Amino acid sequence: MANPLTPDVLVDPVELTRALVDIRSVSRDEKVIADCVADVLRRTGHLTVERVGNTVMARTELGRDQRVVLAGHLDTVPINDNWPSTVVDDLIYGCGTSDMKSGVAVALHLAATLPDPAYDVTYLFYEAEEIESEYNGLNLVAGSHPEWLRADFAVLLEPTYGVVEAGCQGTMRALVRTHGRRAHTARAWRGVNAIHAAGEVLRRLEDYHPRTVTIDGCTYREGLNAVRISGGVAGNVVPDECAVEVNLRFAPDRSEQQALAHLREVLDGFDLEVTDSAPGALPGLSAPAAREFLTAVGVAPAAKLGWTDVSRFAALGIPALNYGPGDPALAHAPDEHVEIGQIRDGAATLHRWLAG
Amino acid sequence: MANPLTPDVLVDPVELTRALVDIRSVSRDEKVIADCVADVLRRTGHLTVERVGNTVMARTELGRDQRVVLAGHLDTVPINDNWPSTVVDDLIYGCGTSDMKSGVAVALHLAATLPDPAYDVTYLFYEAEEIESEYNGLNLVAGSHPEWLRADFAVLLEPTYGVVEAGCQGTMRALVRTHGRRAHTARAWRGVNAIHAAGEVLRRLEDYHPRTVTIDGCTYREGLNAVRISGGVAGNVVPDECAVEVNLRFAPDRSEQQALAHLREVLDGFDLEVTDSAPGALPGLSAPAAREFLTAVGVAPAAKLGWTDVSRFAALGIPALNYGPGDPALAHAPDEHVEIGQIRDGAATLHRWLAG
Repeated sequence: MANPLTPDVLVDPVELTRALVDIRSVSRDEKVIADCVADVLRRTGHLTVERVGNTVMARTELGRDQRVVLAGHLDTVPINDNWPSTVVDDLIYGCGTSDMKSGVAVALHLAATLPDPAYDVTYLFYEAEEIESEYNGLNLVAGSHPEWLRADFAVLLEPTYGVVEAGCQGTMRALVRTHGRRAHTARAWRGVNAIHAAGEVLRRLEDYHPRTVTIDGCTYREGLNAVRISGGVAGNVVPDECAVEVNLRFAPDRSEQQALAHLREVLDGFDLEVTDSAPGALPGLSAPAAREFLTAVGVAPAAKLGWTDVSRFAALGIPALNYGPGDPALAHAPDEHVEIGQIRDGAATLHRWLAG
Repeated sequence: MANPLTPDVLVDPVELTRALVDIRSVSRDEKVIADCVADVLRRTGHLTVERVGNTVMARTELGRDQRVVLAGHLDTVPINDNWPSTVVDDLIYGCGTSDMKSGVAVALHLAATLPDPAYDVTYLFYEAEEIESEYNGLNLVAGSHPEWLRADFAVLLEPTYGVVEAGCQGTMRALVRTHGRRAHTARAWRGVNAIHAAGEVLRRLEDYHPRTVTIDGCTYREGLNAVRISGGVAGNVVPDECAVEVNLRFAPDRSEQQALAHLREVLDGFDLEVTDSAPGALPGLSAPAAREFLTAVGVAPAAKLGWTDVSRFAALGIPALNYGPGDPALAHAPDEHVEIGQIRDGAATLHRWLAG
């Protein structure tokens, strides 16, 4: 198959978006798109290119003082009667248009057309972001080739509709168990009801006042919620155990250890078992490359509320943020689309920043 | 097969207990024992005998002012390496010895040997008490032959270890649902947590002060307990629904309607759906036959705490109580046994009462 990512296509990030969408690449089926992307990058002549699985890394080696990463995933969620792409007025419709082939197109366009950026740039095009973490290309190379990620600053081209979303909150899940003593409900006074005891756990959650924390101009709202509850033995038995699963979302000024200490304080006196935890990521906007990026974008940054792959950079000490032309509200939707203007704006902004 | 319930056996309630235990009669397999019992009753000559399925009714028709019922179930739970019967000192071991072939033996002994009681007596030997209510012989004849149950007073020969357990509490189960609005836990302030809202339900249950009610000298302790709780959508979602199942045990001075009104009052403001309900039974010890029975027994009555078949009589307006030689703590146990002295005492007491 001839590579559809021709030189004519590469110079236009809008045409490139369509061409990338029209190469199907549902998670675990990214070989063809990775072949096409690696081929383009190798042909540029100004990039060093490496590949692991269907994750492709390309970088300039110009001896600049600073290095930045532009990263995007190549995969999409399953097709949902929305492939191949179509254009209606100034919108491109199709699976992956927003999440995130328009972002990949902007990065690939710059990789192909900007041989002499003001920073050294590492481009990362990775596989399997939409599925379990064990397949995630960025996660895999963070383990096997951490030098690919080494940089002073990273931009992930996830859909943000042109807004800068910086850092991310941490998340911790824990089981809070209450205990009692079984008895027949006709003789309930002989037992101790563990579900009743969970009332105090729920009262503390209901009374909890989450912090709002502003870091580098980004405001993070914490939260502590019961997400599941279960208990009970039979319809005529005073239950001897109840379990409440709680989810703490914590601002990135707390480490996981500090978050756990906070959780233990709130639920003091209860049996608590952490089942899942991931650290937050500080926005890190004081890095010089980050400040220059924000100047180029010209819009105040906002806190990223969910957990995203920027945390994988943060875990390596690299400030990272999300910035992309797609609309996050349209990700995974059957009518997914992207505005052509957003693609052009995003490409122009990143070019302005990287050209220096 | 020759009927093992011979005249020699029928005159001795202890021998009769052993003979009845040695006719296997696990629930749904009561044909042989019902055949033997019906045959004995028909041979007496002083009883009118009828049968439906494996439930046998026999009654005197002496034109007495009052009629009393003696009732017992013929079935047992499954054999558990405890069949046939064995005798060790003054104990008879075996499946059904306490629950309740010793009680059945006392009633069958009286039916066979007391042709001229002071009250008209209806003897009911019924099937399938140990399994689902739809098979319960007493429940079935209450529907198909309610005249078999008609009486001024009833004694159920369930194991009470010679104590009189009168009336029984009612029971009502209800689902209490709380509602909220889903949101991602990273943006929890956009949602309303239904599990947190259930905290108030549990607080009211924890604070609930159950009544203690004394009727006819029997003390009933009410109770209101959460028996099950469930809620939750996913580990990262503020849940929009939680359900608490509660079980109210109410003294027999409340009707089901009154119990429901009480439950609605305690849980005012919450969405409540009754899923199961059974009325209590007043002890009804002021009926003349009941007072004479208590005099014969000579021990103060106690409240029955669980729900038993006496409620089926109460539903027909017939005062009923539990009184039998078996030990309720041994029912369904592998080492189930009955004291020979309890059988003789029970038979003597009932004879004294019925002979007048």
